[in-house]
Amino acid sequence: MSHAVPGLAKAVEEIADEMRQRPDRGDVASYIPELARVDANSFGLAVVSADGSVTAAGDSDTSFSIQSISKVFTLTLALGLVGDRLWRRVGREPSGSPFNSIVQLEHERGIPRNPFINAGAIAVTDAILSGHQPREALGEILRFMQFLAHDSSIAIDESVAASEKRTGFRNIALANYMKSFGVLDNPVDYTLGVYFHHCAIAMSCRQLAMAGQFLAHSGRNPATGLSVVSAERAKRINAVMLTCGHYDGSGEFAYRVGLPGKSGVGGGILAIAPGKASIAVWSPGLDKSGNSHLGRLALESLTKRMGWSIFGA
Amino acid sequence: MSHAVPGLAKAVEEIADEMRQRPDRGDVASYIPELARVDANSFGLAVVSADGSVTAAGDSDTSFSIQSISKVFTLTLALGLVGDRLWRRVGREPSGSPFNSIVQLEHERGIPRNPFINAGAIAVTDAILSGHQPREALGEILRFMQFLAHDSSIAIDESVAASEKRTGFRNIALANYMKSFGVLDNPVDYTLGVYFHHCAIAMSCRQLAMAGQFLAHSGRNPATGLSVVSAERAKRINAVMLTCGHYDGSGEFAYRVGLPGKSGVGGGILAIAPGKASIAVWSPGLDKSGNSHLGRLALESLTKRMGWSIFGA
Amino acid sequence: MSHAVPGLAKAVEEIADEMRQRPDRGDVASYIPELARVDANSFGLAVVSADGSVTAAGDSDTSFSIQSISKVFTLTLALGLVGDRLWRRVGREPSGSPFNSIVQLEHERGIPRNPFINAGAIAVTDAILSGHQPREALGEILRFMQFLAHDSSIAIDESVAASEKRTGFRNIALANYMKSFGVLDNPVDYTLGVYFHHCAIAMSCRQLAMAGQFLAHSGRNPATGLSVVSAERAKRINAVMLTCGHYDGSGEFAYRVGLPGKSGVGGGILAIAPGKASIAVWSPGLDKSGNSHLGRLALESLTKRMGWSIFGA
Amino acid sequence: MSHAVPGLAKAVEEIADEMRQRPDRGDVASYIPELARVDANSFGLAVVSADGSVTAAGDSDTSFSIQSISKVFTLTLALGLVGDRLWRRVGREPSGSPFNSIVQLEHERGIPRNPFINAGAIAVTDAILSGHQPREALGEILRFMQFLAHDSSIAIDESVAASEKRTGFRNIALANYMKSFGVLDNPVDYTLGVYFHHCAIAMSCRQLAMAGQFLAHSGRNPATGLSVVSAERAKRINAVMLTCGHYDGSGEFAYRVGLPGKSGVGGGILAIAPGKASIAVWSPGLDKSGNSHLGRLALESLTKRMGWSIFGA
Repeated sequence: MSHAVPGLAKAVEEIADEMRQRPDRGDVASYIPELARVDANSFGLAVVSADGSVTAAGDSDTSFSIQSISKVFTLTLALGLVGDRLWRRVGREPSGSPFNSIVQLEHERGIPRNPFINAGAIAVTDAILSGHQPREALGEILRFMQFLAHDSSIAIDESVAASEKRTGFRNIALANYMKSFGVLDNPVDYTLGVYFHHCAIAMSCRQLAMAGQFLAHSGRNPATGLSVVSAERAKRINAVMLTCGHYDGSGEFAYRVGLPGKSGVGGGILAIAPGKASIAVWSPGLDKSGNSHLGRLALESLTKRMGWSIFGA
Repeated sequence: MSHAVPGLAKAVEEIADEMRQRPDRGDVASYIPELARVDANSFGLAVVSADGSVTAAGDSDTSFSIQSISKVFTLTLALGLVGDRLWRRVGREPSGSPFNSIVQLEHERGIPRNPFINAGAIAVTDAILSGHQPREALGEILRFMQFLAHDSSIAIDESVAASEKRTGFRNIALANYMKSFGVLDNPVDYTLGVYFHHCAIAMSCRQLAMAGQFLAHSGRNPATGLSVVSAERAKRINAVMLTCGHYDGSGEFAYRVGLPGKSGVGGGILAIAPGKASIAVWSPGLDKSGNSHLGRLALESLTKRMGWSIFGA
Repeated sequence: MSHAVPGLAKAVEEIADEMRQRPDRGDVASYIPELARVDANSFGLAVVSADGSVTAAGDSDTSFSIQSISKVFTLTLALGLVGDRLWRRVGREPSGSPFNSIVQLEHERGIPRNPFINAGAIAVTDAILSGHQPREALGEILRFMQFLAHDSSIAIDESVAASEKRTGFRNIALANYMKSFGVLDNPVDYTLGVYFHHCAIAMSCRQLAMAGQFLAHSGRNPATGLSVVSAERAKRINAVMLTCGHYDGSGEFAYRVGLPGKSGVGGGILAIAPGKASIAVWSPGLDKSGNSHLGRLALESLTKRMGWSIFGA
Repeated sequence: MSHAVPGLAKAVEEIADEMRQRPDRGDVASYIPELARVDANSFGLAVVSADGSVTAAGDSDTSFSIQSISKVFTLTLALGLVGDRLWRRVGREPSGSPFNSIVQLEHERGIPRNPFINAGAIAVTDAILSGHQPREALGEILRFMQFLAHDSSIAIDESVAASEKRTGFRNIALANYMKSFGVLDNPVDYTLGVYFHHCAIAMSCRQLAMAGQFLAHSGRNPATGLSVVSAERAKRINAVMLTCGHYDGSGEFAYRVGLPGKSGVGGGILAIAPGKASIAVWSPGLDKSGNSHLGRLALESLTKRMGWSIFGA
C-alpha cells in the first residue's frame, strides 16, 4: 500500500466501526431462507484505489449473495457481445418504479425501462444467451467475474439459485410477459435459469471492489493495464448506474452519495468514484426501496470525507 | 481570458459552426405564439470557466425564454428559504414520466416526484411564495437571477407570461390537483402567477452560464468569491439535475452528455461541469422529450472533447 | 292508490323500519360543512309505481343534496340537445376507478370514460352550456327537473354550490385537464359554475322518484303520457346507469341490487325497475366507494322482495 | 316447436340472412393457427326459448372454440364448490382494461377485478382445481358442460389447447404474477393446464344456447326442471356478465344489446334474456375489444325486434 490515499485508511476504519455499532440496520431480505439466514450484524467495506491497493475493514472477506449487482457485469458482457443493438430491447431511463414492477412493461410494449430493474436484467441475460445453452452462458458470466476480480475461486451459490427458481414467480411473470411481446429470443426457462444463477454468485467486498475497477478507470484495470471496455463505454455504464442503479431510490442515492452505484438485495453495493476508486460495501439490512440501509450511509460518509462525489468538491 | 482552458475556444467555435449547419434541428415549441416565432436556426453556446472567463460562440448574447431552466434557481431559492422542509412537499426521484404528467400525483397523494417536473416546480414556487404577495415573490426570484448573473438587465417577458397564463390549462390542473391534497399553501392563482412569470424570464446563454457558476464551484462564484449556497447543497442540486433535469430523457442525457443539466422548452440547456465550468447552450428545436435537440448534441460533443464527463475521463 | 302493487306498501314500510334501526350507517360526507351537518339517522324511501302512485316511508319528503344523481338528468338533457355527438367527448364504459380519478384522462387524451364520473359529467355540462351564459344553462337544467318531478318548488341550495366552488380543487383540476385536450368548449369557470350548481339541487325522495319515471317507462311519464325521450334512449341511459352509476362500486350494485341506479355523495340513490317503478332512497352515510350504505341495502332488500331485479326472477 | 314465440323464427332467419351478407366482418383471431384457419364467413345463431324449443339459423350446428365463454361455466362451477369464498380471490367490478391487462393486478395486490378477464378466470380455475389433479378438474368441467347442454358429444379441441399452451406467454405471466401474491393455491402449470383446456372446448351455437338456459330461468333448466344453481346465484352471474362480460367493451354491449352476455375470442357470444331465452351467436371476426363484430350486431338487432332488453321495452 505504498501509494495510499491520504485519510482513506482512517476513514474506512472509522466508518466500519461506526456502522458495526448502529442499532438501525434495516430488514434482511426474507423471501428465501438462504438470504434470511445471513447475520444482520455483518458489515464489510473494501476500497480499491487507483494504484490497485485495497483498503478494507469489517467483514470484507466474507462472501455474500451479490444478487442485482451482477447486473452491472451482465450489462457489460452483453454490450461486448451485441453492442448498441442491446438498446433495442431495453431502455436506459430511470423507471420511477419498484425493482419488480410490471406496469411499465404493459405501457411500453414489453421493453423494460433500463437494464437494472429485474425485467431489464432478464432481457440483458437473454441477449447473452443468444442461442447458447444456459450452462455455457453461465460459464461465460462466471469466468468474466473471476477474470475481473482476479480470483478464480468465485462461485455460484447453488442453493440460492435453486430457491430463487422455486419462488421467483414474479420474475417468471416478467419474463413471460416480455416473451409475449417478442422481447426475449430464448426459451423463458433458459433465460431465467441463467438469470437466477448469475444473481446467486457469491463474492466478498474485496472481490467485488476488485471486479469494479475497470469502471473507475476508463474501462481499464490500472493494476494489470488490461482493457475491459472502451473509456466511452465505462462512462456510459456509470451513467446508467447513477440514474437507475437503485430502483426507485436512485435519486436518493445520487443526492446523498453522489456516486454511480448498484445495489443488490443481499445487502451489497458496488460504487464507483471515477478516476479514484472502486468501492464495495455490504450490510444485509435493507431500506424500503430494497437497498442496503447501512451500506448507503457508509458510502455517504465515505464520499463526504474523501470529497469523492461526482457532483462537486 | 488569460487563464484560458486549452482547447476550449477552438472546441466552442467548431461546435457552434457545426451546429449552425446541421439540417436536423427538431421542432420549435408551438403551444404559444411567442415561442413559435423564434428563429429555428438560432444557436448559441457560452462556457464560463473556473477563472470566470467566458468562451462563447453563435447567438450567445441573444435572449430566449429560459422556461424550465428557471426551476434550478427557484429550487435553490426555496432551499435557502425553507431548507430541507421543502422535501416534505416534493420528492427527488426521477419520475419516468413526461414533464406534465398527472398520473404519478394521483398514486402518490399529490406529492410531485421531483422539483423539475412541472408539478414539482409549482410546489417549489408555492414554498417561495409562503404568504407573500405574488409581486414580491417574483421580485425576489428576478433579483436572485440578476445577482447570480451579475446583470440587472435580466427581465421577464410579459407577453410570454401572459400567453402561458391564458393557455396553461394543464398546469392549472396540476396546481389544483396538488391543492386538493393540501400540498399547496397559497391561493392557486397566486402560485401559478409566479410560476408562469419565472418561466418567462428571458436570458442569453452568456447570462445563464454566468448565473450557473455557483453550481460548478462548491456553491461559490469563483470570480467574486461570494457564496450562494453551501458546497453540500450545490452538490445535491447537481445530483437532482442529473437524475431529473430532462424529464423522461434524463437517463439519455446522463448517458450521452454525462453532466448535470436542466433544459427548458425554449430550447435552452444549462449544464454544470463540477470544478470546471458552467455551460449554457441554446437551440430552439426540441426532441420528442421536449429537450433541445442540437443543444444536447453540442453538449455531448463538448464534454467528449474536453473530457468533462462526471462519469470518467 | 287504487292499483297498488301487491306487497309493495308492506315492503317499503318494513324496509324503512329496519333501516332506521341499523347501527351501521356509514360515514356522512364531510368535505363541505353543508353535507357534514346532515343528520346521519335520516332515512327516506319512495317508490313510484307504473300507475303513478307513490309508496313512501321515512324521511321521504325531506330535501337533500342530490349531488351526482343530477348527472342522470344532465345526460338526458345533453343527449336531447346534441344527440349522439355527445359521445365524441365522453365514453360509456365503466372506468374501474374512483369518481374523481384523473389517471384515465391522461391515458385517453382527456376523454372521460363515462358521463357519471366527475370528469364525464363536467364534459356533459359543457355540452349543455354550448355558448350560453351559465345562468341560462342552469335555468334550463332546473326547469327540466321541475318539469320531470311535476314540482316547481325544486331549487338549488346556493350554500352547497358556494362551498363546492370554494373547495372543489379536484374538479377544477379535472376540468382544466380536459380543457388542455380541447374536450371542453366553454370557459372552465362557466362550465364548473353550472356543474357545481346542478350538483347542489335539493330534492326529496318523492320528488326524485317522480322525476325518474320516464326511465322506467320507455321514456314516457305514464301518468301524464308525456314523452321525455325515445324508448331507445331511455333503455340506453338505464344501461349506462347499470354499468357506470356507482363509480368503482358499479359491479357490486348490479350484483346485489340488480337495477340501473345512480348514487350521489349526499346519500341519495335513484334506481329504475324498467316497466315497474322509479325508486329513490336516501341515507346520508356512505360506503368506501362513496355510495349510500343503507341506501344500497334497502334497494337490495326491496328488489329481492318484489322480484324486480333485471337479471331474473 | 308448439309454443313458438311470435316473430322469433322470422327474426332469427332474417338476421342470419343479413349477417351472412355483410362485408364488414371484423378480423379473425390469428394468434394461434387453429383459430386463424376458421372461415370468416361463418355465422350461426341459436335461441332456446322458455319452453325449451330451439330456433336456429346459419351455421348453428358447427362447432367453434368457445374460449372465454367457458368462464361463465367455470364461474358457476367454482361458486358451487367454494361458495362466496370465491370472492376473496377475485373481484366483481368491471376493470376498464383489456382482457389481458396486468396493470390492475399490480395495483391491487394480485386480486383480479372480475372472473371474466383472463387473470380472474385463471383464479377461478385454480379454485376448481383445489388440490385435485388437472385431469380430474378438467373432466368435471367438461361433464358439467355436457350435462348443461344435454349432449355428451361436447369435447375439447386438443390442438387448440396445445397451441394456447405453447404461445400463452401472457397468461403464464398473469398466473405467475398472481402466484407471487399467493392468490393461486395450485402449481401454476396445473392451473394453466386446466385453463387452456377449458378455453379449448368446442361447441356449436345450439349446444351453447342449451347450456345457458339455467341462467335465463332462475337457475333451472325449464325443460328438465333440474335446478343448476339457486335463483339468486343465477341473477348474480347474469349481473357479472352484464358489467364485465365483454372486457373494455362491456359498457358498449350493455348500451347496444341490453342483455347479460359473454364473448369469446373464437367469435362466439352467449347472451341471456332473463325469463325469455338463452341465445348463442357465432361469427369469427372480432372488433377492437376482441368481441365478435357481427355477433354483437346480430344480438342488437334481435333484442330490438323481440323487445328483450333488460333495460326497458
